[in-house]
Amino acid sequence: MRALATVMMLALGFSTAGAEVRTKVVEYNEGNTALEGFLAWDDAVKGPRPGVLVVHEWTGLGKYAKSRAEQLAKLGYVAFAADIYGKGVRPSTPEEAGKTAGIYKGDRTLTRARAKAALAQLLANPLVDPKRVAAIGYCFGGMVALELARSGADVAGVVAFHGDLSNPNPEDDKNIKCKVLALQGGDDPFVSTKEVEAFEGRMRAAGVNWQVIQFGGAVHAYTNPDAGNDNSKGMAYNAQADRRSWQAMKDFFAEIFQ
Amino acid sequence: MRALATVMMLALGFSTAGAEVRTKVVEYNEGNTALEGFLAWDDAVKGPRPGVLVVHEWTGLGKYAKSRAEQLAKLGYVAFAADIYGKGVRPSTPEEAGKTAGIYKGDRTLTRARAKAALAQLLANPLVDPKRVAAIGYCFGGMVALELARSGADVAGVVAFHGDLSNPNPEDDKNIKCKVLALQGGDDPFVSTKEVEAFEGRMRAAGVNWQVIQFGGAVHAYTNPDAGNDNSKGMAYNAQADRRSWQAMKDFFAEIFQ
Repeated sequence: MRALATVMMLALGFSTAGAEVRTKVVEYNEGNTALEGFLAWDDAVKGPRPGVLVVHEWTGLGKYAKSRAEQLAKLGYVAFAADIYGKGVRPSTPEEAGKTAGIYKGDRTLTRARAKAALAQLLANPLVDPKRVAAIGYCFGGMVALELARSGADVAGVVAFHGDLSNPNPEDDKNIKCKVLALQGGDDPFVSTKEVEAFEGRMRAAGVNWQVIQFGGAVHAYTNPDAGNDNSKGMAYNAQADRRSWQAMKDFFAEIFQ
Repeated sequence: MRALATVMMLALGFSTAGAEVRTKVVEYNEGNTALEGFLAWDDAVKGPRPGVLVVHEWTGLGKYAKSRAEQLAKLGYVAFAADIYGKGVRPSTPEEAGKTAGIYKGDRTLTRARAKAALAQLLANPLVDPKRVAAIGYCFGGMVALELARSGADVAGVVAFHGDLSNPNPEDDKNIKCKVLALQGGDDPFVSTKEVEAFEGRMRAAGVNWQVIQFGGAVHAYTNPDAGNDNSKGMAYNAQADRRSWQAMKDFFAEIFQ
């Protein structure tokens, strides 16, 4: 598979000679709030390339979202892992995480401001082709990526992995200009079938270019290897759904970054 | 893209030198009924390879399902387009098509017998690796492919494109041993959101390895270029959903034919 990936990158015009993923902690601000994001890119790729914003789960920017940014860099993209919560705000218990995420879930204006500040960091990077930019997010981050789309942001697409699909302001869905892909666990008790349906209904009503994939047997957080393997807890890693959803994202990028 | 496809086929171990798709009309029987299927394969590919059964829409085996078989042959598979209705039974009006399809929709035992007879043709082909076989179907053919799975057939996977997901015998879902992928039009009035949900519920209850993709903006028959372009009729071609669904099928095959 490594050989195939190399062959494909060559065919796509990427140079893999001396491929080396670089990373950098990036300090930035939104209003008076200090934020600390994480940039990843491949030094061996030449010229402007697509950029991907990565939005963390409810625990804030940590190793998981950073590892996704590095994976995206290996695919040839510039990836910027956003910090929505603020420098040092990294909830360590579910209670704290729920409380912090709740602030942003309740205040969509604040959420958008933070998402836009992160997007601006990505767009300011000279390695990024500003016409080929997308946002992805996990759980809480899926909500943030979708909220960025609802702000009318000029991105080509948004991908939510087991994302929170809620939206208290359905009228804002009509602001979505980009393509939307939601990758849901078919057994996710935190984002129920009812919520997925409601989301589909809103996307339909707003005339959005949307897709939803349901992965049978997968529950919440199915892409996260640290989520354990007990589906009965409602959150568990599912290697198959992880692979399938990553492939779906790659196909989506191939379409929107043409 | 042609260059990329070639590079990928080389990387996958297929030889493309002198690639030439061959086709053959195949006469076969199920009980006393004469059937006329269509085989497609690439003469330049050497050795056993995966086989794909293709099941036609409600109008019976015609140019559409045959063209899909040829596309699959170009991908390196052996494809057999089944004849479910019988030699010469090719309904030419929606009324006739509905009546003929209704026979099979009502008599699932007959449907399974016809599907199995077609599968036997594919398996009997020395170019086919019998451990790597799948079935796909369009509309009515989606129902047939799923019914084949419900018979407990030893296939690796089944793909239904805008398929009829109905099943009068839900207890039979537990016989499904293969992976299942349903590719639905998000606005399909003939296979409604309610029916898709019911299908998901049955797959879940039966412990099937299932996936469902909903393509926003697509109605019934979205993969068929002859379906027109008026969504308000409930059936229309959608080039984007056609491409997306074909890619999803290819990804699924890459997984199940490992």
